[in-house]
Amino acid sequence: MKNYFKKSLKLQLFCIFAFMDKTKPIGVFDSGIGGLSVLKQFIKFLPYEKYIYFGDTARVPYGNKSKQTVEQYARQSTEFLLEKGVKLIVVACNTVSSIALDTIKEISNIPVIGMIEPAVNAALRETNNKRIGIIGTRATISSNAYLDLIKTKTASKDYQVFAKACPLFVPLVEEGLLHHAATELIAKEYLEEFIENKIDTLILACTHYPLLSELIKTILGDVTLIDSGENAAVLAIRLLAEKAALIDDKEEFIRKPKITFYVTDVPTMFYDAAQRFLGFPVDKPNIISIEKI
Amino acid sequence: MKNYFKKSLKLQLFCIFAFMDKTKPIGVFDSGIGGLSVLKQFIKFLPYEKYIYFGDTARVPYGNKSKQTVEQYARQSTEFLLEKGVKLIVVACNTVSSIALDTIKEISNIPVIGMIEPAVNAALRETNNKRIGIIGTRATISSNAYLDLIKTKTASKDYQVFAKACPLFVPLVEEGLLHHAATELIAKEYLEEFIENKIDTLILACTHYPLLSELIKTILGDVTLIDSGENAAVLAIRLLAEKAALIDDKEEFIRKPKITFYVTDVPTMFYDAAQRFLGFPVDKPNIISIEKI
Repeated sequence: MKNYFKKSLKLQLFCIFAFMDKTKPIGVFDSGIGGLSVLKQFIKFLPYEKYIYFGDTARVPYGNKSKQTVEQYARQSTEFLLEKGVKLIVVACNTVSSIALDTIKEISNIPVIGMIEPAVNAALRETNNKRIGIIGTRATISSNAYLDLIKTKTASKDYQVFAKACPLFVPLVEEGLLHHAATELIAKEYLEEFIENKIDTLILACTHYPLLSELIKTILGDVTLIDSGENAAVLAIRLLAEKAALIDDKEEFIRKPKITFYVTDVPTMFYDAAQRFLGFPVDKPNIISIEKI
Repeated sequence: MKNYFKKSLKLQLFCIFAFMDKTKPIGVFDSGIGGLSVLKQFIKFLPYEKYIYFGDTARVPYGNKSKQTVEQYARQSTEFLLEKGVKLIVVACNTVSSIALDTIKEISNIPVIGMIEPAVNAALRETNNKRIGIIGTRATISSNAYLDLIKTKTASKDYQVFAKACPLFVPLVEEGLLHHAATELIAKEYLEEFIENKIDTLILACTHYPLLSELIKTILGDVTLIDSGENAAVLAIRLLAEKAALIDDKEEFIRKPKITFYVTDVPTMFYDAAQRFLGFPVDKPNIISIEKI
């Protein structure tokens, strides 16, 4: 019995110290390169950290795939990052965050940040008329993950939530048609019900959608857009600071963030698309065979 | 030495007889369910055959992915169909046909039909002014597979070929926006160079594009559209007939084609989309884990 406690204490101390190693990188994963819009926000708010980004580009997109398949892929990505010794896992993909966050937390012995809770908290903070919209992929919307969390968090019943899948936004953003007439036509169709429903806050529940912020603002007018990545990054500051696991601020200005990229495929247009999401050119990524993850 | 010949003869006879089993099914594979537009043509021209359709829906689409990744997936799909004991492999995916046909032929001991040669033969037969257009995914177009084959087949130098990647056609078709104003806008942009270049024949080098035939005709006017699936099915009749491997025609009218479906995922919208490509409702598919192929 004594021995058991000794072992358990040792294990706990090991876990705490393992986690307390500030110099370990933050792991970010996504179905592809869209998650670079989330990484961009992390670099803005946590510029001194090291990052490992994993994008499952050989099997992207997840947004129309089934729960079982997304869970399987999420498990593999999480195991990959755990093996790399990260101190925090950021699930940049909203589809994965909606469907598989519990699965990821179950297999992780380190903190995990998904995209849903930070965005929901921000939306509840921002809304004045208690009418909130959510846009995302089909898998994200049909999971009801955002809706359920808003219901749980708001004891009062007077919040109204309107959710809409916008499946064409991902390919339109990937083609760079951010201000194209066709994108505007489709966006107007997707968003018109939010005007009718008089929302004052809209959660952008997909990594690709922040790139359409301007267009969405033009259509919806005075509506607050909630960027999942930004709110997740702010949560990460607090979470790491509380555990004294933030890297020490450096005085010198860092010109280039320390990012190690892993992808399962380097598709055509990879570098163009990656730069669009991240805002600066991407180094050559390491390629990991999907058979090895 | 005598023994060797005996064995070799035995093996040859075995191979011939193995192939001559008319009752074996035809195997069709694709990155997803788009290949059902090809299967539809096969059912039209070869209604008495049995079919096994394999769609890699857990990793779809292939159209923007790298050569290495597409080759790996193609190898797995081929091995899956070979294990099922098919008499012919139809590579319904134009991206796979463009990139990985040699790889597939190398590992197959049965005939393989890709999408490129039948379509190129039809285009060369149809064109009057020797100006041919090709539209497909990025991977298909950048492979130059169609262009190279046209060059090889036409000894005379006066054929002019114009190729254009139309990456948004796939998601637009999958959303069912076949006649939408946004699809028309995008189609006009993609196709305008074919009007300038005065083509009289256009190869639809992607499983999804036949569903846009009407819209494309409206934009291009008097241009012959080449359907890859239709031409591949006609080639299959000839190929199987020459080897006496066509199933005997039955007199009774077959109301329901015999198709066994295998997919790696059943995504949301699967049944709607499948029906759009095939023209009739799809039975529940068998799900194969990608870890098992």
